[in-house]
Amino acid sequence: MVFLFTDFGTGGLYVGQVKVVLQEHAPKVPVIDLLHDAPAFNVKAGAHLLAALAARLPRGSVTLAVVDPGVGGAREPVAVLADGRWFVGPDNGLISVAAARAKHIEVYSIGWRPKEISATFHGRDLFASVAAMLARGDRNTAGLKKAMLAVSFGADDLPEVIYVDHFGSLVTGLRADAVPQGRKLVINGRGILHVRVFSEVRQGEVFWYENSLGLIDLAANTASAQQVLGYKLANRLA
Amino acid sequence: MVFLFTDFGTGGLYVGQVKVVLQEHAPKVPVIDLLHDAPAFNVKAGAHLLAALAARLPRGSVTLAVVDPGVGGAREPVAVLADGRWFVGPDNGLISVAAARAKHIEVYSIGWRPKEISATFHGRDLFASVAAMLARGDRNTAGLKKAMLAVSFGADDLPEVIYVDHFGSLVTGLRADAVPQGRKLVINGRGILHVRVFSEVRQGEVFWYENSLGLIDLAANTASAQQVLGYKLANRLA
Amino acid sequence: MVFLFTDFGTGGLYVGQVKVVLQEHAPKVPVIDLLHDAPAFNVKAGAHLLAALAARLPRGSVTLAVVDPGVGGAREPVAVLADGRWFVGPDNGLISVAAARAKHIEVYSIGWRPKEISATFHGRDLFASVAAMLARGDRNTAGLKKAMLAVSFGADDLPEVIYVDHFGSLVTGLRADAVPQGRKLVINGRGILHVRVFSEVRQGEVFWYENSLGLIDLAANTASAQQVLGYKLANRLA
Repeated sequence: MVFLFTDFGTGGLYVGQVKVVLQEHAPKVPVIDLLHDAPAFNVKAGAHLLAALAARLPRGSVTLAVVDPGVGGAREPVAVLADGRWFVGPDNGLISVAAARAKHIEVYSIGWRPKEISATFHGRDLFASVAAMLARGDRNTAGLKKAMLAVSFGADDLPEVIYVDHFGSLVTGLRADAVPQGRKLVINGRGILHVRVFSEVRQGEVFWYENSLGLIDLAANTASAQQVLGYKLANRLA
Repeated sequence: MVFLFTDFGTGGLYVGQVKVVLQEHAPKVPVIDLLHDAPAFNVKAGAHLLAALAARLPRGSVTLAVVDPGVGGAREPVAVLADGRWFVGPDNGLISVAAARAKHIEVYSIGWRPKEISATFHGRDLFASVAAMLARGDRNTAGLKKAMLAVSFGADDLPEVIYVDHFGSLVTGLRADAVPQGRKLVINGRGILHVRVFSEVRQGEVFWYENSLGLIDLAANTASAQQVLGYKLANRLA
Repeated sequence: MVFLFTDFGTGGLYVGQVKVVLQEHAPKVPVIDLLHDAPAFNVKAGAHLLAALAARLPRGSVTLAVVDPGVGGAREPVAVLADGRWFVGPDNGLISVAAARAKHIEVYSIGWRPKEISATFHGRDLFASVAAMLARGDRNTAGLKKAMLAVSFGADDLPEVIYVDHFGSLVTGLRADAVPQGRKLVINGRGILHVRVFSEVRQGEVFWYENSLGLIDLAANTASAQQVLGYKLANRLA
């Protein structure tokens, strides 16, 4: 199984082109879009989202992960095997949080290069082919060599809004199991109460809860927490 | 075949996670996204859209249908077999219009529960697994028992805008075969003429027509009826 | 392999319905979404985007291409075999740029008609079935007859913005191999320099580069060229 995690945009010209390559090089392997609206240019937020999603992915799967503002520059491609799941993408920190939280990791540089490579679309020209190779179990062609990550954000939580969903809920980089369930969070001097499900509060009221990825989420009952709080992506909690 | 009909958002964190579960539990079954931008929190509009789509789905298919503002609250999960098509989702009315219009329906409560269930994402944790079971023909594991729908909106049309498409066309919950083709609709004192195809009117002119789902649609030739009319979702026709 | 190239919108009611038909008539054939947010109503921009994408599609594939403001009017359906790749859609110019640039083309009228056809959704009712027939290699049922394109935009480049991506990059209809790499483009009296990769310029600076489709693209380093330049779709370069 190949998963796609990118900031390419869900609509748009790019995802389909990646799938053409996957289909040509690993035609029997199912491809699932995990996310294509990871925050653009924000590698750190993407790294924390990817780490939260990673724990739920089946072992043996391959995730092509691309949030890559430095494409064409100095950063190298990398393949990481973290607790039995492959991640392929730029070595710019994106895979590093998932890697730092894994019990067992192996990091590899990628020797394979395509005959032609565009300056800006390594997702299609390099990472998709390598993901297909790993999905077929072909490490040799990929030219993997033991290596180290050049950039790592570490395993710690990120007390920021890392994603705003289309309901206006604010997903943070804080894992809920580190915060006592009854605790009030204070944001901009405003106390936010914990609830377990949306229906425990009145319509429009803001609360925090443990979301389905195990992260602390600021939400509102049938309303947009983003609008109520005026918070947005990358805003820090304090 | 499994169809997905939700308000999870087409981009976004949620659809991919549902597909991971489907792929794990029914790996050979094709999955098709019918709609992920059903009006958020608006169960009634979703119910009418789903009913209009349902008639075109192949018999034997399974539709996972989730518009579920009360998730985690009192509503129960339900499985409905309507004219040979399965629908799995919350018993909050969403499936009820399709059910009420079917010639033959069977309603079942769902006994199966996952080992872990998040408070807010039953689409992934419960409904996806049950949809996979039904797609594999495994009613036993799902723990189905004959039941009744707790919430039903009935079979009648809904004289409201139930969906605004990305061209700005206003889809209503009125089935066109109940309205004489030449009839003028009056909206806010403004008469809207019927035409059969867009090219019959001048550019920018608003008209109504029977759309490809058999519903009355307010549209404009190469323009946005929403902008021209100032109408929006849930506005009633009068 | 069947590719979809439309202006139906990535979210929305339409794409799923097309896939239901493809799944029913060609169940073993993989379907890949190339683009569903081709500029609405803008056949010429779509034709240039499609031509740029076409060169990368595998031979033997079938692309269902629909940008069709005249649906239900006078234009006819058409199937084109261009350098070994099928294209099926309206004969309104959409396929014509890809056709005009191909070394070998065959143009066919389509004799097959469905029992029922909606006035406005030929993508589902006619083109999807024909695409499935061609993907199965069944030209007979499709009722193909040698023909000519009624509308053609020719092979020449289009010096306009033909697509704005979700990063705010402005894709033009100019192929980069016709423009010397070091050349400055002048837009609204403002000179735009060429760079090879984003990281060569400062954050927020606008430049042009050869994008991954071989087209000239106006972009900005980790910023939106659209916002910086105030340019938008269909704006002409000068």
